[in-house]
Amino acid sequence: MGLLERLTSPAELHRLSLNELRILAEEIRELILDTVSKNGGHLAPSLGTVELTLALYSIFDFSIDKIVWDVGHQAYTHKILTRKDNFHTLRKFKGISGFPRRVESTFDSFGVGHASTSISAALGLLAAEELQNKFGRVVAVIGDGALTGGESFEALNHAGQLKKNLIVILNDNEMSIAKNVGALSEYLSEVRLNPQYRKAKKDFEDFVKGLPLSETILNAAQSVRYGLKSAIVPGTIFEALGFTYIGPIDGHNIRTMQDIFFRARELDEPVLIHVHTTKGKGYEPAEKSPEKFHGVGKFDKDTGEILKKNSPPTYTEIFSQAILDLAEKNKKVVAITAAMPAGTGLKKFAEKFPERFFDVGIAEEHAVTLAAGMAAGGLLPIVAIYSTFIQRAYDQILHDVCLQNLPVIFCLDRAGLVGEDGATHHGTFDMAFLRTIPNMNILAPKDENELRQMFFTAAEMKKPVAIRYPRGAGLNVEIEEKNFLAWGKAEYILQDEKSDVVIFAAGSMVQNSVDAAKILREKNIFADVINARFIKPIDKDILKNSSCGKKLFVTCEEGTISGGLGSAVAEFFADENISVPVLRLGIKDNFVEHGSRDELLEICGLTAKKIAEKISTKLEIETDVKIYKKSSLKKF
Amino acid sequence: MGLLERLTSPAELHRLSLNELRILAEEIRELILDTVSKNGGHLAPSLGTVELTLALYSIFDFSIDKIVWDVGHQAYTHKILTRKDNFHTLRKFKGISGFPRRVESTFDSFGVGHASTSISAALGLLAAEELQNKFGRVVAVIGDGALTGGESFEALNHAGQLKKNLIVILNDNEMSIAKNVGALSEYLSEVRLNPQYRKAKKDFEDFVKGLPLSETILNAAQSVRYGLKSAIVPGTIFEALGFTYIGPIDGHNIRTMQDIFFRARELDEPVLIHVHTTKGKGYEPAEKSPEKFHGVGKFDKDTGEILKKNSPPTYTEIFSQAILDLAEKNKKVVAITAAMPAGTGLKKFAEKFPERFFDVGIAEEHAVTLAAGMAAGGLLPIVAIYSTFIQRAYDQILHDVCLQNLPVIFCLDRAGLVGEDGATHHGTFDMAFLRTIPNMNILAPKDENELRQMFFTAAEMKKPVAIRYPRGAGLNVEIEEKNFLAWGKAEYILQDEKSDVVIFAAGSMVQNSVDAAKILREKNIFADVINARFIKPIDKDILKNSSCGKKLFVTCEEGTISGGLGSAVAEFFADENISVPVLRLGIKDNFVEHGSRDELLEICGLTAKKIAEKISTKLEIETDVKIYKKSSLKKF
Repeated sequence: MGLLERLTSPAELHRLSLNELRILAEEIRELILDTVSKNGGHLAPSLGTVELTLALYSIFDFSIDKIVWDVGHQAYTHKILTRKDNFHTLRKFKGISGFPRRVESTFDSFGVGHASTSISAALGLLAAEELQNKFGRVVAVIGDGALTGGESFEALNHAGQLKKNLIVILNDNEMSIAKNVGALSEYLSEVRLNPQYRKAKKDFEDFVKGLPLSETILNAAQSVRYGLKSAIVPGTIFEALGFTYIGPIDGHNIRTMQDIFFRARELDEPVLIHVHTTKGKGYEPAEKSPEKFHGVGKFDKDTGEILKKNSPPTYTEIFSQAILDLAEKNKKVVAITAAMPAGTGLKKFAEKFPERFFDVGIAEEHAVTLAAGMAAGGLLPIVAIYSTFIQRAYDQILHDVCLQNLPVIFCLDRAGLVGEDGATHHGTFDMAFLRTIPNMNILAPKDENELRQMFFTAAEMKKPVAIRYPRGAGLNVEIEEKNFLAWGKAEYILQDEKSDVVIFAAGSMVQNSVDAAKILREKNIFADVINARFIKPIDKDILKNSSCGKKLFVTCEEGTISGGLGSAVAEFFADENISVPVLRLGIKDNFVEHGSRDELLEICGLTAKKIAEKISTKLEIETDVKIYKKSSLKKF
Repeated sequence: MGLLERLTSPAELHRLSLNELRILAEEIRELILDTVSKNGGHLAPSLGTVELTLALYSIFDFSIDKIVWDVGHQAYTHKILTRKDNFHTLRKFKGISGFPRRVESTFDSFGVGHASTSISAALGLLAAEELQNKFGRVVAVIGDGALTGGESFEALNHAGQLKKNLIVILNDNEMSIAKNVGALSEYLSEVRLNPQYRKAKKDFEDFVKGLPLSETILNAAQSVRYGLKSAIVPGTIFEALGFTYIGPIDGHNIRTMQDIFFRARELDEPVLIHVHTTKGKGYEPAEKSPEKFHGVGKFDKDTGEILKKNSPPTYTEIFSQAILDLAEKNKKVVAITAAMPAGTGLKKFAEKFPERFFDVGIAEEHAVTLAAGMAAGGLLPIVAIYSTFIQRAYDQILHDVCLQNLPVIFCLDRAGLVGEDGATHHGTFDMAFLRTIPNMNILAPKDENELRQMFFTAAEMKKPVAIRYPRGAGLNVEIEEKNFLAWGKAEYILQDEKSDVVIFAAGSMVQNSVDAAKILREKNIFADVINARFIKPIDKDILKNSSCGKKLFVTCEEGTISGGLGSAVAEFFADENISVPVLRLGIKDNFVEHGSRDELLEICGLTAKKIAEKISTKLEIETDVKIYKKSSLKKF
């Protein structure tokens, strides 16, 4: 029986020996590897934090203390320690989430998913402890990537001022920082926690003061007195923000971390512990290719081979080629991404046009205002950010891009339901929140070829444009070289004189609507299908004409119905006093859990079958109402 | 004839002597003072930057070089130099804006209003210059306040990595920083720009290396070698981010600034020039009370007395008292503001409950996640942020507060049209963008007493709630001690059996709708008026029942109609197949300029008179349509 199997509570880690903890680390590593190879997930980040998590749990008591994992994709060990019996359901529909969630466990102090929130949340939790006279310590674990998000800086700045015992662990897996400082700093971090440090500092000051110095040197030395604290350690930036900086230390050495954590707990000030870890630690393929194994689908754990289905080109791949093609002809094209060059399909662009490529790190706000600045300067910036992350830049889109009506093209990948990453990552709000912004144009392609054409068309418009498209494979349609689309015009996909129903669908839902129409046809219900193409400006002509004399007008979108496409249609019909019955299909006004995209489409009622069912049910109700209305009319 | 009067182009500043520039500074100061005392405006910030602006214009050529003013409230001298003949129209309807705007002048390289965008935008402009093989220099001027916004950090971090000659001027008017470093630093900034600096640095390194040191000292000294650059100057944080730091220098000494700017222009790296200025410089009342004279209405420039009309209590004042009353009884209540303790009405709270008050600086994202953390820890956080600035935290409201359904109350002051501050500052999007977020509740009080009651009611709900209320005075109604409101229920204000029309209004528009109903009554048109109270959840019962049998259902809101209250009503009517004609009154889907609130309500068609007009016009059309429909029916 393994050590992990015998564990009944994470509190038991306090009693384990160093050797036992090391054995436990290997067992946990094996479980993570085994589970993620079957379920997919964030392998490399979670393999990198096994020892860190064990060290934390061996010192802190997280039934009282609190821990906030930034992003949360590194928290699998934390999940295993607190719910190991369910870990096999990781990322499965109705199973445990890939990210910490408050509803899942009391050990998940704060739900996460988007980057750079942990220090803010941890500071909030700490303030709550203090104001309620409790003694819980609060730890935030944040990666060096998430640290580039501005919110982290805002939180550090505030925490430094408050002078509370917030413990921030910087989980740094970039080699460059560690190399710069080397072994000296581990020693220094030891020194700084030690009372002798203060004495050493004073010695040094006195020593410098006592020397006969030339004038230049004197000024420098006086400045050293002011700046000594920051000069001693490599974490000047954190010291400047009011933190005690410790590190970097080896994030795979449990004993070192235990010592530091134990002493950090006792400080009366905010402390930042810089921990150096290796992404993918202990699994060679992931150590060699940490980016490939960052978030990964199923793979063969013996060979490290990713199990891929043969699939048509993805939307990402089509975008990747389209921006290359455009950039060849138009020298004003620049591309901006927020730490996602591979995910957004910009790697080839970055290789071919390095001087026109800007990866700003996890910094969506800056990405958008930077784009606005470039556009104001005469360039044509393409901002490639996942739908869910562009939420971060609502104000910048409004205030910097749209208010000035600047030509910035937003390519929003992973729009709609993204599947296993769940509620924090679905891109289901974009149509609704972007639609509130004047001057914004919002497009959704029905297939991968239309994405290409929308992109080329948008590039000509000199306006703010957002193109939102789903995760994964396209429909395997033929790709045209170039075919400009009429601006603001929808297109009929199916049209029949006999139709009683119109389905007005956006993006991914066009094909599902076509399939739904086929199902309905079997029930002798004829439905037109229109590809909306433009959520904004919406095609008012086609709305007016297509709805005329119909029994039912259906809107269908893979996005929230609170403010989205269906809402735009409802607004127009209200304004124009068009009284056709409307059925708005989309994602109800609540958050959607994780699961496969098919499972989620099913529970959201957005499969072809469900769409057809809802339409035929609604038609029956409408027909009943009409009969009732007619009969009640007769009474008068 | 004054110097200013003789100026025909800002380029002429290159030719002026230091003495002439000083005279010009006084003339400009007088013009600013004179104009702002009549028009209102941002007096203290703009008085603080007169010399800074003149020094910049005397060195740079901003017909080629570009300048981005963060926020832009300090840019009056810039406006005077480039459009002095129109300066008397400052902040007036159809006059020049209080902020730089691209449509106003080619000298306004980038439009501003919200804080912390300047470095991002400037970096974008600089990239555009370089990629188009131009030679323009780009300067960003940012205050120490705006620097706390995370986007500034994101941009500094990116700029430091790009190593382009971006010139950031930190306009620091906080005394604390200057005191810490004193006269030494001015000398040091001189030294650092000098080639001799490198030699001095090397001397110091060699000198330290050659000394016989004890082990502790040795480590410290080795570290000093690594950290020397940051130890020499007080701007360690900027140096750590890859900037060359210069300063602080006297921001009222034109000659010093000229020297520094001239040399900064020649660097091949990003440079941050730390300039120390005095807010309100040269006008004693503003120097003494810079906060009072930050943004100010009309005042007597001789006495410094603010000209105030006697007005009923403002919404801000009512909120200020309500949160005090709540906090006395409920120890879990904490208040968070983003650099606006006075503006949001939290000063009294801060004095009475300092340990429960959190001013996070200009950092709306952090403010919201901090609140979420506090709520997760068991507190009841009240986040008081102006409507326009809460746009910054859309993702945090969605991802941190609402996804976890945490009890955070957002008190959104300055909702709707704010008047003279214009397009960047109107709070007209809140209802629309907040409505897209599941679990969010949105309330708007019809008067100041209802604000108080909504606040107490929200405090009991244990849900995310946003209460949005307008700038300025209430309606002078009686204030009740406590009167809980039924959740999700609207209320009839006017109801008449004879009514053909229902006006469903939110917040500030309730009173205007009542007044409109009175005007309509004179035309023998009877209109019910309903106070929506809840934008979300909307009162479906009252929508259904009130609309039954009516000729027209009007929605009225001081917010965008693209996704707002009217959209919610249109959605509901579409879903329920209620076919009453609808008239959605609100702010059209475009940005609204600056002017007095009355002027803006007039052009937006939201005065009582305009509302009445639109209703009667729409009724005529509807009646015509009905007659037409009836007659066409007869033909069959």
